[in-house]
Amino acid sequence: MKQSAIPFVLGGLLTLCSSSLKAQEKPKYLDAKESDPIKMGWMQGSPPPADRIVYFEDGSFFQFPAIRWSTAHMRQFMPTTNVSRGLANAVPLSKSLRKEIDQVKFTPLGESKAITWEESLQKVYADGVVIMQHGKIIYEKYYGALKPELQHAAMSITKSVTGTLGIMLAKEGLIDTTKLVSHYIPELANSAFGDATVRQVMDMTTALKFSEDYADPNADIWKFSAAGNPLPKPKGYDGPKSYYEYLPTVQKNGTHGEAFGYKTVNADVLGWIIARVTGKPIAEVLSEKIWSKIGMELDAYYAVDGIGTAFAGGGFNMGLRDMARLGQLILNNGVANGKQIIPKSAIDDIRKGGSKKAFEKGGYPLLKGWSYRDMWWITNNEHGAFCARGVHGQVIYIDPKVDMVIVRFASNPVASNAANDPYSLPAYHAVAKFLQGK
Amino acid sequence: MKQSAIPFVLGGLLTLCSSSLKAQEKPKYLDAKESDPIKMGWMQGSPPPADRIVYFEDGSFFQFPAIRWSTAHMRQFMPTTNVSRGLANAVPLSKSLRKEIDQVKFTPLGESKAITWEESLQKVYADGVVIMQHGKIIYEKYYGALKPELQHAAMSITKSVTGTLGIMLAKEGLIDTTKLVSHYIPELANSAFGDATVRQVMDMTTALKFSEDYADPNADIWKFSAAGNPLPKPKGYDGPKSYYEYLPTVQKNGTHGEAFGYKTVNADVLGWIIARVTGKPIAEVLSEKIWSKIGMELDAYYAVDGIGTAFAGGGFNMGLRDMARLGQLILNNGVANGKQIIPKSAIDDIRKGGSKKAFEKGGYPLLKGWSYRDMWWITNNEHGAFCARGVHGQVIYIDPKVDMVIVRFASNPVASNAANDPYSLPAYHAVAKFLQGK
Repeated sequence: MKQSAIPFVLGGLLTLCSSSLKAQEKPKYLDAKESDPIKMGWMQGSPPPADRIVYFEDGSFFQFPAIRWSTAHMRQFMPTTNVSRGLANAVPLSKSLRKEIDQVKFTPLGESKAITWEESLQKVYADGVVIMQHGKIIYEKYYGALKPELQHAAMSITKSVTGTLGIMLAKEGLIDTTKLVSHYIPELANSAFGDATVRQVMDMTTALKFSEDYADPNADIWKFSAAGNPLPKPKGYDGPKSYYEYLPTVQKNGTHGEAFGYKTVNADVLGWIIARVTGKPIAEVLSEKIWSKIGMELDAYYAVDGIGTAFAGGGFNMGLRDMARLGQLILNNGVANGKQIIPKSAIDDIRKGGSKKAFEKGGYPLLKGWSYRDMWWITNNEHGAFCARGVHGQVIYIDPKVDMVIVRFASNPVASNAANDPYSLPAYHAVAKFLQGK
Repeated sequence: MKQSAIPFVLGGLLTLCSSSLKAQEKPKYLDAKESDPIKMGWMQGSPPPADRIVYFEDGSFFQFPAIRWSTAHMRQFMPTTNVSRGLANAVPLSKSLRKEIDQVKFTPLGESKAITWEESLQKVYADGVVIMQHGKIIYEKYYGALKPELQHAAMSITKSVTGTLGIMLAKEGLIDTTKLVSHYIPELANSAFGDATVRQVMDMTTALKFSEDYADPNADIWKFSAAGNPLPKPKGYDGPKSYYEYLPTVQKNGTHGEAFGYKTVNADVLGWIIARVTGKPIAEVLSEKIWSKIGMELDAYYAVDGIGTAFAGGGFNMGLRDMARLGQLILNNGVANGKQIIPKSAIDDIRKGGSKKAFEKGGYPLLKGWSYRDMWWITNNEHGAFCARGVHGQVIYIDPKVDMVIVRFASNPVASNAANDPYSLPAYHAVAKFLQGK
């Protein structure tokens, strides 16, 4: 196996908007139609043709254009742990399609010519999109390898799921966000997290010596990836062998609470706290608290490390409509089917947002005026929109003003959302404007 | 990674009643209660204690007593491919429990003292049992790590699933069982299967030079396991890298059609034929033909090799109640919820059985008078019972005379059903006798 390639695999899952990935010269990629994974025939045939087989261990499954197939079939490449939807019937989402949405126009950031919503989906290599307004599906499309009965990688939307569980448990009294992380996880006492509060972890204002510079082979992100890789460790490997072994090695760099620093490891620390205070793996907590409670139609799943720990920073996979149900639950102040599933105070906490001043220091020129709270991105735009975001184009975009949720899975060749945002952020808002008053 | 241990892992999944495993002196194992996997705490904790963590790569996940946890969590150890139940609601099984069954008595084979059904479940380390009569659940129990919402390893029951799909496709005209295997899979022309008929493969009367002698490190079973192992091949490995690469290497030993020879590779050849004639992976075929058609409540899944091929000889996992639904479908001549899902002629073909003469040469002293057809075991007893069987105690036992199906998942420390059969075969029949006329 190509050892050097292994960290790459997980590395790809780990970040979002890493500044080091931004604004480089754009390589030429096949477009969305040319790279259609079904037409390309990835992993199809008995056996598939040699040039259509991809592997986990060398990272080829996660390279464009094969990634367009793999994101809807992550389980075929790695061990996973299930998030049960329970055994009750799914609660169907009622549907009243608005085909006019396809023709909604907007001008991408940095461009001068307007394009349609429909065109924008090709630009971002969308695999599936659902838009809900007033609790009903008004738009639903699938492309490429995704189908309603398949789960798709949610990438860093995973973090927002972790954050949501975190603030739920806080409002239920199981976690005190003002306490130090080391109060819950003594193993982290001597790490950067030792004197950080749970709140700082949840808002990613910890000051960490943790480089996500993908160009640097000695960057911490590679060590983290190697630790969390579920494959057997290579001969001679003497680093940490799991997320729980890695996290205590993270060192501090600066003062906690001052600046937003988007580091995946915060989400894994929060996942650890959740597992510790509940005494259950996070997959089970998520099933008990949300997945089995709101009429989901598919089980969801997490990628795991070599000792079975779910990757709470980026390893979550779910169905597209279930992601819409999750977004709707948040939009609806934690109520689904007439039941309060998430305390309203938890949703309020997310929506009030984090420190804009801290966020400004995080280095996201496209996201002016935003903040980050409970692992959600708060736009602070005129509609009070907030979102969950993951590399390669995953999103849950919630616009409370027009009572709208947009969820999208995608497999953009570029990981960083800086590649998607020019075609996405104004698109979401244009659809919201179109729906205003409807 | 301990390379030598890797083949062991899959080897354990591969056989049933291998004669080399039989009748050796019984080691002393913890009993069913002592080895309760939840009490033992396998993989529980954040992180679990070091002596409660098990791994795929060294085979420890599959060793007793950890196997009692792992069989209900196979996905956490390996890549898998999903068998979708579709999106429709499950069709509930009606329930009318008969608690008297626990007290049904029988005398285990080779013993003189009678025990109860309930006691027998402890003897075989049952993880879950459902008994259905007249289409209703009359008995349902879960032990250890198994829950209604979890899938359990079906081991060689997988073969009967493959065989059922095979005979379905034959009756639908997609497979001609009188044709040579090489007609469908030219890649097998120069292997033992080249001049075997599909029928001979389906009834395992192929004459194969394929040793499943676990004591012999050069036995073919280890090479097969190494080929199918989804982990990256170790440095210097130059053998076949997938099931499809391995199967063409199997050589002939004798004359096809004369003797029953229980060899897992036959099921994988049939799986290959199924994938080839349908143009789809077997997981998709199973979903389309059965799993999405009869109101299953859980998705099922297969373990896969390094190129994503489902292990059609032993890698299937499903929920206990869904296994009951599957058994009921077969008992009910292919009809479920009023619809003909499997052609009746396919069920007739299974039930008519294979050659008893050929079976007698297969070396199963406990299974006198039995035969093997379409990868099902036909008891030819007074009730016309037939069954699907897997190592470590998995079973679907169908008794048409009393309109009964028994399904059981287990995690017996001994792989071979020779360890279960003395407590199982007379137990099934005793329950059947008890239910007769009811």
